[in-house]
Amino acid sequence: MPPATVDSAFQKVTEGVQVKPNPYGPNPHDFMSNVSRFKLIESTLREGEQFANAFFDTEKKIEIAKALDDFGVDYIELTSPAASEQSRLDCEAICKLGLKAKILTHIRCHMDDARIAVATGVDGVDVVIGTSQFLREYSHGKDMNYIAKSAIEVIEFVKSHGIEIRFSSEDSFRSDLVDLLNIYRTVDKIGVNRVGIADTVGCANPRQVYDLVRTLKSIVSCEIECHFHNDTGCAIANAYTALEAGATFIDVSVLGIGERNGITSLGGLMARMIAADRDYVLSKYKLHKLRDLENLVAESVQINIPFNNPITGFCAFTHKAGIHAKAILANPSTYEILDPADFGLTRYIHFANRLTGWNAIKSRVDQLNLALTDAQCKEVTTKIKALGDIRPLNIDDVDSIIREYHADQNNEIAAAIQA
Amino acid sequence: MPPATVDSAFQKVTEGVQVKPNPYGPNPHDFMSNVSRFKLIESTLREGEQFANAFFDTEKKIEIAKALDDFGVDYIELTSPAASEQSRLDCEAICKLGLKAKILTHIRCHMDDARIAVATGVDGVDVVIGTSQFLREYSHGKDMNYIAKSAIEVIEFVKSHGIEIRFSSEDSFRSDLVDLLNIYRTVDKIGVNRVGIADTVGCANPRQVYDLVRTLKSIVSCEIECHFHNDTGCAIANAYTALEAGATFIDVSVLGIGERNGITSLGGLMARMIAADRDYVLSKYKLHKLRDLENLVAESVQINIPFNNPITGFCAFTHKAGIHAKAILANPSTYEILDPADFGLTRYIHFANRLTGWNAIKSRVDQLNLALTDAQCKEVTTKIKALGDIRPLNIDDVDSIIREYHADQNNEIAAAIQA
Repeated sequence: MPPATVDSAFQKVTEGVQVKPNPYGPNPHDFMSNVSRFKLIESTLREGEQFANAFFDTEKKIEIAKALDDFGVDYIELTSPAASEQSRLDCEAICKLGLKAKILTHIRCHMDDARIAVATGVDGVDVVIGTSQFLREYSHGKDMNYIAKSAIEVIEFVKSHGIEIRFSSEDSFRSDLVDLLNIYRTVDKIGVNRVGIADTVGCANPRQVYDLVRTLKSIVSCEIECHFHNDTGCAIANAYTALEAGATFIDVSVLGIGERNGITSLGGLMARMIAADRDYVLSKYKLHKLRDLENLVAESVQINIPFNNPITGFCAFTHKAGIHAKAILANPSTYEILDPADFGLTRYIHFANRLTGWNAIKSRVDQLNLALTDAQCKEVTTKIKALGDIRPLNIDDVDSIIREYHADQNNEIAAAIQA
Repeated sequence: MPPATVDSAFQKVTEGVQVKPNPYGPNPHDFMSNVSRFKLIESTLREGEQFANAFFDTEKKIEIAKALDDFGVDYIELTSPAASEQSRLDCEAICKLGLKAKILTHIRCHMDDARIAVATGVDGVDVVIGTSQFLREYSHGKDMNYIAKSAIEVIEFVKSHGIEIRFSSEDSFRSDLVDLLNIYRTVDKIGVNRVGIADTVGCANPRQVYDLVRTLKSIVSCEIECHFHNDTGCAIANAYTALEAGATFIDVSVLGIGERNGITSLGGLMARMIAADRDYVLSKYKLHKLRDLENLVAESVQINIPFNNPITGFCAFTHKAGIHAKAILANPSTYEILDPADFGLTRYIHFANRLTGWNAIKSRVDQLNLALTDAQCKEVTTKIKALGDIRPLNIDDVDSIIREYHADQNNEIAAAIQA
């Protein structure tokens, strides 16, 4: 199917427009914003392994780790070496690859887990403990004093090995705010590298996130990491808002795979961030490798790329209604905030349907190298829309109608000359 | 595959917990919030028809309209009758169905379109015109005075027919704020029912949305409708934030289908809103019909339900890691903000994998009606995790290991008695 691409026009046409300052850039009033200096903690090999379909053998883990590193993620987080013997061996193997990305592993706030973790050769350890009323009652059954005491023990142990340490609460948005700020201040004082906020049940909303991160920012001097589940569809927006409020690190996974319906997706966050600061994103991440990376993981866990996936969904750059197609042909920025070329992709003007307009058809006529006036293009568009009312059209249908109409016009001219 | 459901425990267990006021409810500081009185404008048959794969014949449109009405949507928006002759006939046919939902059609800000629209018998007309620099330059080429003049003409014409009228800008977030507020104030004064904000390119972020809706709320006395595209993954969060700021109406489509990768999805917004105000959502919408509605539309446009779709994605209520499974078995609220039973669905504890824990295995042992002590459950869990390290497991694998282990224990006891 030959797509009616107009990619080459993008740069040229946008250069001609007087572009105002990017309205999607960092808000100048957010003086703590890290929108333009965020970092990625890539968790496909930890959170992603908790996805229902995931089973990564050693070879696949290494392939994914290398692809993530090549893409440019800042950190790669791995399943706890305490989860199983093979998990431990895989963690060691990935640490030995010599990747540019730092390697983390994610453990419970237990000395047993911490000892196994530091022995694997990781660059850092992410410690988590449930702080919500629910988790304190139904998961580990410990009170905040106990949590603080074990946190301090684990953190000092990990620090004594000279590697990075992050302390995160779990289900942060359903935890008592005073308890939460107390424990964060405690671990900040003993020198953690990062504190983490986790929306474990996936239900925080953006303005709640902004408030909690801003408040936490005023309490601690270390950096802030955020982890958002997507149960209510806000994981990408929450990540962006956390960065506006002063968080630096966002946990992502390829296609967002994780527990239940997952977390902030790497690709979705790239879409969000490139709209905010294109230069920063392009300078750090190899966006044209996104599709291959997503295909690699999707095949490993036997899922299809969602039709509506940001950037790589099959229709992300497809324009259909006549009024959209017309404007896109004149200037892609009219109906696109993302440039498909940034991701090694192309746009597609869908002209074979009843919602099409004569501008889209005229563009197709030009591609077919046929000569029709604007009035003729409008007339043939009417014929195409009439057939499109009866049944779905494909490109061949449209091309046949155009060619037949063109031939008829020429025959009429020939007949007129002969007469 | 017999799922290890614990649904019946949900109500019972949560009743036993001292539940605090819902932290995801409307923020009491948002005194203009409509989170608890929002309405849906369902646009599968308008925006959804602009989805690349969509071709709805009359019969299918009627089937979808009836299903939407049964679900409880407040308005159903249809493709412009000016788009094609069949679009006009379908619009008339749906108006005659006598649905509870009000029927709208969506037209350009042209008298030609308005005349055709009012003749179809719709309950209201949604008028849209591009107000951004991009659209004014590359789409219709008109200035703000022309836009205001045609808006007034169309609005007064539609009002004179005694039906509802909404005026929306297009690409609102890239429009000049002064121009935008001027035109909204003008149309509010002449008595539109709603003004609309549209993030046509899908790139607004939640706090921008909040600011614009709050500002607009102070300018107009009519109600506010919002339309969010999902190019950068924020369409659900933006819709929620718009309601917090005082918008009342959100445009949705089933599975979010629309131009490019679509708009706020009906199901995703239901997930977001039920977390905020369960009573309101359950009182208005038949959530247990959501899955059938999504399947109907997905089949019509030949797509798969995304694996990570809120609520109905295959893994939305699947819990895998041992620590999650343990807590979920004790109380589902620990790792779930949504109750699958509200949607006629069930949860699933995924215990056949190397991340499993002994609590999940013990639950399976109980389901199999076998007697093992906690110590024995821990021992058999070690065996299951060891096999899970080597290859993906299915439930039969786990059951075999458990049964074999159980038989061995009994044989040992029998041997001990005989000895």
